[in-house]
Amino acid sequence: MSAVWGNNLKVSIFGESHGNAIGINIDGLPAGFELDMDKILEEMARRAPGRNQLSTARKEADLPEILSGVFQGKTTGAPLCAIIRNGDTRSKDYEKTKDFMRPGHSDFAGNARYLGFNDYRGGGHFSGRITAPLVFAGAICKQILEDRGIVVGAHIASVKDIKDKAFDSINISKEELKELREKELPLLDSKLEDKIKHTIMQAKYDGNSVGGTVECAVVGIKPGVGNPFFDSVESTLSHLIFSVPAVKGIEFGRGFDITTLYGSEANDEFYYDGDVAKTKTNNNGGINGGISNGMPIVFKVAVKPTSSILKEQNTIDIKNKTNVKLQIQGRHDPCIAQRAVPVIEAVTAIGIFDLLKGRE
Amino acid sequence: MSAVWGNNLKVSIFGESHGNAIGINIDGLPAGFELDMDKILEEMARRAPGRNQLSTARKEADLPEILSGVFQGKTTGAPLCAIIRNGDTRSKDYEKTKDFMRPGHSDFAGNARYLGFNDYRGGGHFSGRITAPLVFAGAICKQILEDRGIVVGAHIASVKDIKDKAFDSINISKEELKELREKELPLLDSKLEDKIKHTIMQAKYDGNSVGGTVECAVVGIKPGVGNPFFDSVESTLSHLIFSVPAVKGIEFGRGFDITTLYGSEANDEFYYDGDVAKTKTNNNGGINGGISNGMPIVFKVAVKPTSSILKEQNTIDIKNKTNVKLQIQGRHDPCIAQRAVPVIEAVTAIGIFDLLKGRE
Amino acid sequence: MSAVWGNNLKVSIFGESHGNAIGINIDGLPAGFELDMDKILEEMARRAPGRNQLSTARKEADLPEILSGVFQGKTTGAPLCAIIRNGDTRSKDYEKTKDFMRPGHSDFAGNARYLGFNDYRGGGHFSGRITAPLVFAGAICKQILEDRGIVVGAHIASVKDIKDKAFDSINISKEELKELREKELPLLDSKLEDKIKHTIMQAKYDGNSVGGTVECAVVGIKPGVGNPFFDSVESTLSHLIFSVPAVKGIEFGRGFDITTLYGSEANDEFYYDGDVAKTKTNNNGGINGGISNGMPIVFKVAVKPTSSILKEQNTIDIKNKTNVKLQIQGRHDPCIAQRAVPVIEAVTAIGIFDLLKGRE
Amino acid sequence: MSAVWGNNLKVSIFGESHGNAIGINIDGLPAGFELDMDKILEEMARRAPGRNQLSTARKEADLPEILSGVFQGKTTGAPLCAIIRNGDTRSKDYEKTKDFMRPGHSDFAGNARYLGFNDYRGGGHFSGRITAPLVFAGAICKQILEDRGIVVGAHIASVKDIKDKAFDSINISKEELKELREKELPLLDSKLEDKIKHTIMQAKYDGNSVGGTVECAVVGIKPGVGNPFFDSVESTLSHLIFSVPAVKGIEFGRGFDITTLYGSEANDEFYYDGDVAKTKTNNNGGINGGISNGMPIVFKVAVKPTSSILKEQNTIDIKNKTNVKLQIQGRHDPCIAQRAVPVIEAVTAIGIFDLLKGRE
Repeated sequence: MSAVWGNNLKVSIFGESHGNAIGINIDGLPAGFELDMDKILEEMARRAPGRNQLSTARKEADLPEILSGVFQGKTTGAPLCAIIRNGDTRSKDYEKTKDFMRPGHSDFAGNARYLGFNDYRGGGHFSGRITAPLVFAGAICKQILEDRGIVVGAHIASVKDIKDKAFDSINISKEELKELREKELPLLDSKLEDKIKHTIMQAKYDGNSVGGTVECAVVGIKPGVGNPFFDSVESTLSHLIFSVPAVKGIEFGRGFDITTLYGSEANDEFYYDGDVAKTKTNNNGGINGGISNGMPIVFKVAVKPTSSILKEQNTIDIKNKTNVKLQIQGRHDPCIAQRAVPVIEAVTAIGIFDLLKGRE
Repeated sequence: MSAVWGNNLKVSIFGESHGNAIGINIDGLPAGFELDMDKILEEMARRAPGRNQLSTARKEADLPEILSGVFQGKTTGAPLCAIIRNGDTRSKDYEKTKDFMRPGHSDFAGNARYLGFNDYRGGGHFSGRITAPLVFAGAICKQILEDRGIVVGAHIASVKDIKDKAFDSINISKEELKELREKELPLLDSKLEDKIKHTIMQAKYDGNSVGGTVECAVVGIKPGVGNPFFDSVESTLSHLIFSVPAVKGIEFGRGFDITTLYGSEANDEFYYDGDVAKTKTNNNGGINGGISNGMPIVFKVAVKPTSSILKEQNTIDIKNKTNVKLQIQGRHDPCIAQRAVPVIEAVTAIGIFDLLKGRE
Repeated sequence: MSAVWGNNLKVSIFGESHGNAIGINIDGLPAGFELDMDKILEEMARRAPGRNQLSTARKEADLPEILSGVFQGKTTGAPLCAIIRNGDTRSKDYEKTKDFMRPGHSDFAGNARYLGFNDYRGGGHFSGRITAPLVFAGAICKQILEDRGIVVGAHIASVKDIKDKAFDSINISKEELKELREKELPLLDSKLEDKIKHTIMQAKYDGNSVGGTVECAVVGIKPGVGNPFFDSVESTLSHLIFSVPAVKGIEFGRGFDITTLYGSEANDEFYYDGDVAKTKTNNNGGINGGISNGMPIVFKVAVKPTSSILKEQNTIDIKNKTNVKLQIQGRHDPCIAQRAVPVIEAVTAIGIFDLLKGRE
Repeated sequence: MSAVWGNNLKVSIFGESHGNAIGINIDGLPAGFELDMDKILEEMARRAPGRNQLSTARKEADLPEILSGVFQGKTTGAPLCAIIRNGDTRSKDYEKTKDFMRPGHSDFAGNARYLGFNDYRGGGHFSGRITAPLVFAGAICKQILEDRGIVVGAHIASVKDIKDKAFDSINISKEELKELREKELPLLDSKLEDKIKHTIMQAKYDGNSVGGTVECAVVGIKPGVGNPFFDSVESTLSHLIFSVPAVKGIEFGRGFDITTLYGSEANDEFYYDGDVAKTKTNNNGGINGGISNGMPIVFKVAVKPTSSILKEQNTIDIKNKTNVKLQIQGRHDPCIAQRAVPVIEAVTAIGIFDLLKGRE
């Protein structure tokens, strides 16, 4: 199974790219929380396709309809379900080549998993479109977290080989995280914007795609959130982050780089800044023993290049059991990394909210 | 909570480093499976401390006592619980400095999480020692998986900046994975052994420690295992891998590196090798859309340098709320990466077994 | 939390009586199962209000819209979500007396649970209306179970003090269970129909209500389904049955009556009927040690009288903290037991399907 | 699966009647709670066999050894695992008749479930002996609940056809619940003691057994604990209660009897007693809509006669596939109801603690 996640908050997702609707049922929200619908829609818009030339031309208003769990503008505490109708679908794009397994996609693995009965149109349930309900749920969690002084934010850390500045991991302000949400391309170093756009557009013109990385931070979290072993902060967040299609790696703090250091360099020494315990460095990304230590939680995520490309590719026809050439039609993002930013923020907010709620 | 993991297999761990015993309760094993106890003990021995100069001098026989779930040498299908008594503990080592928060360790975060009531001796429940029961459970899962043609194996991919060869990800044999288990230092390129030992011993003499990476592979798995979204292969494995203390990063297939490629380079093209669908490259690590595609599952894990070092460090005394100097006594591994290898294999086997069992 | 249930099948419900829609997300269905929509609608109709004078005058077509998980008439294996729009609501009925806690209802307990933010209209999320999605999910499970030779059926075992015949628990045919579904009042002894209708209508004219019991059976299940202890057949079914509003008791086999027997009378002796092991009596309701023994699973459920009655009642006004008199307006069933029959069948089917899927 | 239960507290049980040890791992206890070991042992003693002539002659000290989760007398917040060694076992009693399926027992169903690999000695994992660890865990939960003003207690409501007085469900004192724990036979009407003892001993001399009912109450719980639908108080408690071997029925408040009342009689009218909302009657057993309403939670449980009897019975030999006569040797309780009392209290305490912890 796969549709339900959570210990203290339970989210249950559904939907296929070209079905009637996609959505999410959220159980475990506090009662009486006043939702800011404008903010939720802003988050949805950040992820929505068709915003600019950098993303797919498929236009979806992505307007969520709340079916339950909200009364007089406030959460009732009962399950909150929201759905998004699928509008601008071109299912015929997928009919002709439904037996051609698109490289990099779930087609082949999904066909094996579901014995050939999966909805192949637009990737069906595997579609990145299913992240829209996650962004919706994440937007609610973000509001609740911000109400408690915790802010989640992310930026594009790289596109192909162009690297943005990294967060100053011992000193990230809530404001800078919020400001990133306003940007078309959320970069710390805005001077890179043109170069990155050019790289993405160039890939698009070539019928190709590029990948990137996203750096995410959680600021304002108190020490003591998380668990040893199975539900460590890292386990919880990585579980959710790897639920986002196209993600192939995650590292906390210095991540892979920390393995090249000596222990004396890697360890984050504690000190008192007045009454507050802090660390001089944040190589561990705000997490020790699976539990928050009060420093910003920082991690980086690898988002692979969009699998759908116009360029001709070799693959197999599983009906005729032959090797074939495939040229994928349809409208696709030349780079998903930018649209992945709000999704990564969203699932992070969901994870942090769950951990926070589970703290005794 | 944190002690229970699993959908189709449930493992429940317990124990503190200096308590009476550590252990694991395993529910969901098939009935009638004949356990090879020698093999289980071999796996335990691979992780056990005190094997050579490269690891901690603490000597633990690490002999598991099976309390339930096995009758006449075979699993009964009822919960299998095994415990390991704690023997060679030197609790006094920890008494004097119990209020000094060891940098890199869980002390401070754990103290906040458990309101100061956590067992501080040897890291208590946060101790890497709790991975022994995981290795026990993993050893059983490995046997069952091997019975079904699936082999899990891993090697040290790097220690500090010394890099081993990588697996040839489209062509990994079950034999080479099994052979790695016999080696003192499981390396693909045995010529690096001396250099790596030297690096580790040098760090030890300096009262310091070094980190490393581990590359793990699962061979023999059929297409169609795993799930979209929340219980993807990546989500499941990363959840478990980040439950292993000292792990700070994981990447599947080409991982972070894939983000620098074009889609046309990153996509793994399918072809028929006779009747069997394969991919020409394995940049996605055997997983598409969260589900196995039949190629080897390959991933790499970052293991930070041992946090416990002899060198003097700055830190805080949380009782007196002052900044202090700390010199950690006790016996510690100068490099955990080598002992992490069987642990990573073990939790991977647990995760794969759970996913396999959940497949319809 | 409360909205998610299941180990091997996960159902997640949502909705409030007077909100936009109610619904259910079902995860874990097999891929490729062809749904018989007519049969599903028949089950929905059995529960739907407004069918005859015996039930509430509120008319709801209760037509489910399937949003996902079905493609070309067959299940895809991805989550199947269906919603039912709320139509004929008279929210104003509830406005005036929203601070008056209706006796027997969830108003007071729910208000405490959700800090006063619950949707009070028509009971909100506590409404019996939320059982419609459960009947939808149960109808699907029933079809899958029948495909595997297992039939679930129930009858009204009593209304007030009028008792129907009991199932012959060692000999229940699948046909008789299916035939019960066709009846307006599902009774084994049809001669009681008039008497029962009269009792219900009399209560209605008096502005009052009556309760009843429902006897349910599962036929065709093989020995070995279920688990010892926590997920016994009884635990699983009772968990689901007590999720149905108005249920106050459940007993398996002879139930409470078995406590007055001697062990020699209570024990069901085994014998071989050809190759098949059977029991001579079925006092244990087809379950030993929490696991099916191959005999029909039989249990009885107590459904209390409808809490909503026209008669004036004493209660409290929680806003003004005073004792008040309340006369409940609105349209209500004088007896829920009859409409509970398909709901009890539905959740039983859900439970049995989950247990069956979890069997190794 | 079956060994793990809980949402906010997770208990994981293990053990077979004649294996090395039985035990439980408890995750989710608060840190820093000082355990009263004497009280825990008292609870264990209430359930332990061999206390008097009314119970089995098997003598087990039932001394739990705490392996983890307690440090300096207080809970650490980490998983608390305790085991009980199996001592006085007579495994040979079971060898000769291992293929003879004992009527009323799990032998046949369990054999089907575990493909014949289950430990048949003394019922193996199905043994009532596995309730000892549940009593241990319940004893801890009881202490924590009492610290929060909540008391759980139970009495024998009937043995065969001899009925004890019922609790006065609107007025149960914490003291009377605690006093019941001191009694050899926990009855409200002590005058019945001799008659009940006589009935039990008579059954014993006849090589037979008798059943009974247990009435349980939870006093001091605030309104608002529990959930609508799947995790209602009734669902949660019934799930646990039906995990206790030999239980065949449960009813809350008036239970089955409520179905013979009119709604106007069944509804519990609210009134203010000063500031506190109460109900005039407690036919709903303190629960409305699945959630506590502040009145005592009251329910009754049916415990069937002990399945093991000396009298000769008919049954099957599954090895030879023949009908046979069986005379069960070994030492057994002529009535389990009395020993079920502390077990029912224990699982109730576990359930209430879980629900309480999950309340927002």
